[in-house]
Amino acid sequence: MKIVEGGVNAAKGYLAYGTHVGVKRQRKDLALVVSEVPAKYSGTFTTNVVKAAPVLWNMDIYKHQQPVKAIVINSGNANACTGQQGIEDNKAMAITTAEGLGCEAKEILVGNTGVIGVNLPIETIVKGIKETIGKVSVLLEDGHFAAEAIRTTDTFTKESAVTIEICGKTVTIGGMSKGSGMIHPNMATMLAYVTTDVAISQELLDKAVKESVADSYNMISVDGDTSTNDMYTVLANGMAGNDVLEEEHEDYLTFKKALDYLNKELAMMIVKDGEGATKFIEVNMKGARSKKDAQALAMSVVTSNLVKTAFFGNDANWGRVLCAMGYAGVKFDPSKVTLEYTSEAGSINLMIDGVPQKFDEDLALEIIKVNGVKVNVTMEEGTSKGTAWGCDLSYEYVKINGEYRT
Amino acid sequence: MKIVEGGVNAAKGYLAYGTHVGVKRQRKDLALVVSEVPAKYSGTFTTNVVKAAPVLWNMDIYKHQQPVKAIVINSGNANACTGQQGIEDNKAMAITTAEGLGCEAKEILVGNTGVIGVNLPIETIVKGIKETIGKVSVLLEDGHFAAEAIRTTDTFTKESAVTIEICGKTVTIGGMSKGSGMIHPNMATMLAYVTTDVAISQELLDKAVKESVADSYNMISVDGDTSTNDMYTVLANGMAGNDVLEEEHEDYLTFKKALDYLNKELAMMIVKDGEGATKFIEVNMKGARSKKDAQALAMSVVTSNLVKTAFFGNDANWGRVLCAMGYAGVKFDPSKVTLEYTSEAGSINLMIDGVPQKFDEDLALEIIKVNGVKVNVTMEEGTSKGTAWGCDLSYEYVKINGEYRT
Repeated sequence: MKIVEGGVNAAKGYLAYGTHVGVKRQRKDLALVVSEVPAKYSGTFTTNVVKAAPVLWNMDIYKHQQPVKAIVINSGNANACTGQQGIEDNKAMAITTAEGLGCEAKEILVGNTGVIGVNLPIETIVKGIKETIGKVSVLLEDGHFAAEAIRTTDTFTKESAVTIEICGKTVTIGGMSKGSGMIHPNMATMLAYVTTDVAISQELLDKAVKESVADSYNMISVDGDTSTNDMYTVLANGMAGNDVLEEEHEDYLTFKKALDYLNKELAMMIVKDGEGATKFIEVNMKGARSKKDAQALAMSVVTSNLVKTAFFGNDANWGRVLCAMGYAGVKFDPSKVTLEYTSEAGSINLMIDGVPQKFDEDLALEIIKVNGVKVNVTMEEGTSKGTAWGCDLSYEYVKINGEYRT
Repeated sequence: MKIVEGGVNAAKGYLAYGTHVGVKRQRKDLALVVSEVPAKYSGTFTTNVVKAAPVLWNMDIYKHQQPVKAIVINSGNANACTGQQGIEDNKAMAITTAEGLGCEAKEILVGNTGVIGVNLPIETIVKGIKETIGKVSVLLEDGHFAAEAIRTTDTFTKESAVTIEICGKTVTIGGMSKGSGMIHPNMATMLAYVTTDVAISQELLDKAVKESVADSYNMISVDGDTSTNDMYTVLANGMAGNDVLEEEHEDYLTFKKALDYLNKELAMMIVKDGEGATKFIEVNMKGARSKKDAQALAMSVVTSNLVKTAFFGNDANWGRVLCAMGYAGVKFDPSKVTLEYTSEAGSINLMIDGVPQKFDEDLALEIIKVNGVKVNVTMEEGTSKGTAWGCDLSYEYVKINGEYRT
């Protein structure tokens, strides 16, 4: 696997562009991703009962296993909790894009992110889509602009790409993600778009996606809130020319490993850019009865407001880690738990086999104040492990979210 | 029902006292509650897998339905995650108290609250208990001191008491609670102690407690973290002299109603004193399929960091309420939801039957900035309702919990 430049248009046959059409005051707010040939589509959707209009639209396309030609995404307005008008506005976005590209509306995926409960300025968006597609051949080649255009409170654009070799052909997987707040994906994620030129069966693509999302986007949390607009999307257009992946043989595993890498990268970028975050936190849980248990325990720690504020305050108040494990809904023996904090500044044991350790507070401070702390927990319940990623909770988070609409 | 002065020693035959013994630097840190005659004991315990030593001790007493003579509570240290030493220290607290009062150690309930993962300064506490009991007859008559002595980050003491008439006898119920952070009780609560002189069967007392806790302490949240030390305790010593309550007749319902009132008061005081809170929030959910559904939806809203920060910022960003309902694990039709914010400054409709309403932002600001906002949601799923109580999330919460141990 080789890490390469680029993002959502790194793979063969994908064009992408991002621009400003007027939903936001100044920043880019419309992204287009186009595949030269119809692509297989797989993905996951928010489990929130309140689903935004674009989520419902894409779910329908996925359900009918329709091939996808393009994705149109607007940032600045989520088109969620917008009633029947929201459904109509979403359709208008798809139809306008399809007319511009000469395809069917049902070949267009739609995405939105931003404020909830306000109808889209649909005329502005429709006009913007038309103008953007008008410039298509010249301009539609900037994945970086697309990644910029899907940002809301994000402070940096999130892109990653890798190549692998399959049957002597170079296969590329690239993607972009956005998200900074309302991040606690559950069988879904914030917006993340991955494109690949791999040739693969729908069945195997679905399997790879399901497994990969469970270990990446579903293992991050910024604030415990699962959004109405979460979507993870993969397009696979087959243009790499490899023999179609149809069995779980070695080539599939090579692809799966690369997809996992890419998804974890894009997911971790989201928590590194968590609203107001000053610190990236990784929680590793070992010795659990099952992977599910390990992941539930790790997610509970990474979601705890008290763990998060302690990290913000550079306080080795590790009892809160045990407390958060305790309400994760998983049974374990607290008297068999060993807990360590580690970062590039060193390592420190806080609890060994259930016994609290006297520790050097100065060293603990040095370890914790690094941006990138690992919380390593070992239990004696079994042999399974799991990892979750999160960030601290700062004054800035409160400020950003107390003033979001102003 | 009459609201009366006092708290945990308001009922007949209870003495209480609080003092400083040296666990904390200056503030009171030891509370004693003594019943003149052995009292029936009922209560609930944290569902956290990691249970503090005093929780395990009291669970054993409850399991064996032993009568209780006294409660000893230390604040400043939770005696949680403290291994075998913690178990021994807890026993020492019970034995010392029992020796002083001339009873068995198993008649003494123990409580602790404070930092997790540090062993108790047990010699200081044992010495303090001995000295306090030495002054017993003169001093053990101050429930207010006891309520003071169980505080940690609490900014005010939490007490309440009521009287009712049963068979011509005056029955009193009084109590105290503490809690400000790590508040998200689940089948349990932070520390709350209720004493009553009612005569009642153990079975009926247990039933009343279970139901009452479910609608009070279990319906509050400050930060989504369920503590290792949560305990709700009721003592009933029968000294009111009423005919023993043994059936669910009218007298029982009178008692239950008073107990409900008291528990809700004590629970609401906890969220009103939520760490860093500037605003008390009540969420009323109507038209749900079941009470359980209504309560789960209301708790999800009151626990959402994004809802809480919006209230802190006086922002009517109501889409976050719908979003939090959506991930509560309850099915409902978002297109049948009606949402209103109300406070003493007025009322405003934000969504009617799933359609977002244009609203007066100035009026919304006036309504939200009041300390005591009601979020009223009506669905069309059924006829059940439920209420939860919470507070906003402020800079001060982050400060308090970033610096807790310093």
